[in-house]
Amino acid sequence: MATAKGYAAESADSKLAPISFERREPRPDDVSIEIDYCGVCHTDIHFAQNDWGMTEFPVMPGHEIIGRVTAIGPDVTDYKVGDTVGVGCMVDSCRSCSACESGLEQYCLDGMTGTYNGVDRHDGSITYGGYSDKVVVSERFVVKVPEKLDPAAAAPILCAGITTYSPLRHYGVKAGDKVGVIGMGGLGHMGVKFAKALGAEVTIFTRSEAKVSEAKKQGADHVIISTDDRQMKAAAESFDFMLDTVPVQHDLNPYLNCLKYDGTHILVGLLEPVDPALQAGALVMKRRVLGGSLIGGMPETQEVLDFCAEHGITCDVEMLDIHNINDAYERMKKGDVKYRFVIDMQTLKAA
Amino acid sequence: MATAKGYAAESADSKLAPISFERREPRPDDVSIEIDYCGVCHTDIHFAQNDWGMTEFPVMPGHEIIGRVTAIGPDVTDYKVGDTVGVGCMVDSCRSCSACESGLEQYCLDGMTGTYNGVDRHDGSITYGGYSDKVVVSERFVVKVPEKLDPAAAAPILCAGITTYSPLRHYGVKAGDKVGVIGMGGLGHMGVKFAKALGAEVTIFTRSEAKVSEAKKQGADHVIISTDDRQMKAAAESFDFMLDTVPVQHDLNPYLNCLKYDGTHILVGLLEPVDPALQAGALVMKRRVLGGSLIGGMPETQEVLDFCAEHGITCDVEMLDIHNINDAYERMKKGDVKYRFVIDMQTLKAA
Repeated sequence: MATAKGYAAESADSKLAPISFERREPRPDDVSIEIDYCGVCHTDIHFAQNDWGMTEFPVMPGHEIIGRVTAIGPDVTDYKVGDTVGVGCMVDSCRSCSACESGLEQYCLDGMTGTYNGVDRHDGSITYGGYSDKVVVSERFVVKVPEKLDPAAAAPILCAGITTYSPLRHYGVKAGDKVGVIGMGGLGHMGVKFAKALGAEVTIFTRSEAKVSEAKKQGADHVIISTDDRQMKAAAESFDFMLDTVPVQHDLNPYLNCLKYDGTHILVGLLEPVDPALQAGALVMKRRVLGGSLIGGMPETQEVLDFCAEHGITCDVEMLDIHNINDAYERMKKGDVKYRFVIDMQTLKAA
Repeated sequence: MATAKGYAAESADSKLAPISFERREPRPDDVSIEIDYCGVCHTDIHFAQNDWGMTEFPVMPGHEIIGRVTAIGPDVTDYKVGDTVGVGCMVDSCRSCSACESGLEQYCLDGMTGTYNGVDRHDGSITYGGYSDKVVVSERFVVKVPEKLDPAAAAPILCAGITTYSPLRHYGVKAGDKVGVIGMGGLGHMGVKFAKALGAEVTIFTRSEAKVSEAKKQGADHVIISTDDRQMKAAAESFDFMLDTVPVQHDLNPYLNCLKYDGTHILVGLLEPVDPALQAGALVMKRRVLGGSLIGGMPETQEVLDFCAEHGITCDVEMLDIHNINDAYERMKKGDVKYRFVIDMQTLKAA
């Protein structure tokens, strides 16, 4: 085992603070990684605060990990020492069910193992995430980071990126489609980049006039103020897809009405009951579809990194000293980040 | 113009009663039809009672029409006098939008013209439905009834049939799929027949133990009592599709949980707000889809009749004397029909 450092929360009320702990002994198919960068996702905050009532404390968040390989097990075939690699939201799954065999490990019938707060399938320990100097992960759950990509700005591709890329591909967005992106945070701004790269005409829906210029800067062809009934009515039945990244309850019905017949509204952020109530007639009368999507499988996580390298896409990031992680959480709660904090892990090593 | 007879409601409170009226002068592309049979759909009751607040009185319901061609206009190419033909839920559309050009006239961007209570696009009159001895319809909205089909039992295929057939095809049900059918009325029992004919393994979900033997008689491979939590839990994540024919508010969440990842829940009956609230997490966490579907386009309406002839499928019907139409409505409200009333129009002619 190797002694590691990191930041963890001891309870829902406590702030994140430095701890030392032991990373597990590498197994034959494991890649040992020295972490350089780790993106900060809203899910990290939810787990640290135990918002979903499922946190095992202490919890060490972080599932947008970029680092370099420092050692490989004897069964590792795809990586060598020195490679720049990434680790996203999962570190294991059953590997043998129909989902895993289809490269959709996120839908593993036996449940995927989360990068943090998951239960290790071999030793039953609770997994610790990427707010750390090192990590040990089976090579199946490691991806290569193309040389062309800035590794810090690539970190959020492993969650915010794949979460928006995967549904755009799965639900069939293609050149010429009219795509609406709802929400302009970490996920939304990546959704715009991907939809544009796929050749779509992209409209950002935002509640605030103040965000229009920023939306245009992100590459949106059009901006609709979603609180303006006149603009929303003018957009009726004109979209092929809506990519809905909003993680809190909101009214889906005005957006459904903006879809053409056979249009698709994709949820990637909303996990709560739909309130106000969904108007079923909006689906039936126009054969519209309301679909969901969860991150992406390992082959597609590699694909999105390669796609980003090919199209020059990275996340807009603000680099973070890990000592400021608690302040960063407060700023994220206020939406005060464009668009993702990424921890520079040198700041941990220097501590 | 030709004088016609039929049954109509004068107001939301009145019963259906006989009236005489003038059918419109045939246009060059029109087919004149003597009606032999007309199925009775729940929608007929909703319009007669003005449940949806959109009825123009007097209203003459009926959109599952089977009859024989008595005359054709000079531009008619596909029908000749004597042909047995059908007319379903639509009698017109704009014919030039992308939906119409795709044979999806039910999603016409300018709105389809309903077989009854619709506004005629040429003369602005309100359309009268099939509870009548004759009707005049443009040939684009007429279908051929294959000789192999019993014409009376074929009538409900024009609404109950196409409404269930179309989404099973559109959403991609194929041999070996596990399909659940929710609701065992006019639509549900047709859904079972189609899903079986497509090679699926079919489970009927019913609230009542008393309906199990009837469900098996309809061809279901399995029956699940939806009010039995133990049975519902045992069915978790095991279905590829749910065909939900229930036309009133009901809890979708237990059914969503019965779908595999990538499973599809298809609404064909529900037009109201979803209550209890839809759990968005059930879509996101397993990439499930909630979709709708509305009847079917004209090419597919012909297709379903041909499919029925090929597979020996008809609707289970109870023949009705039109003088008993008001009693039939009362029985339908209690679910007391297996599975569709069909008016024998000889009883109108004999009156």
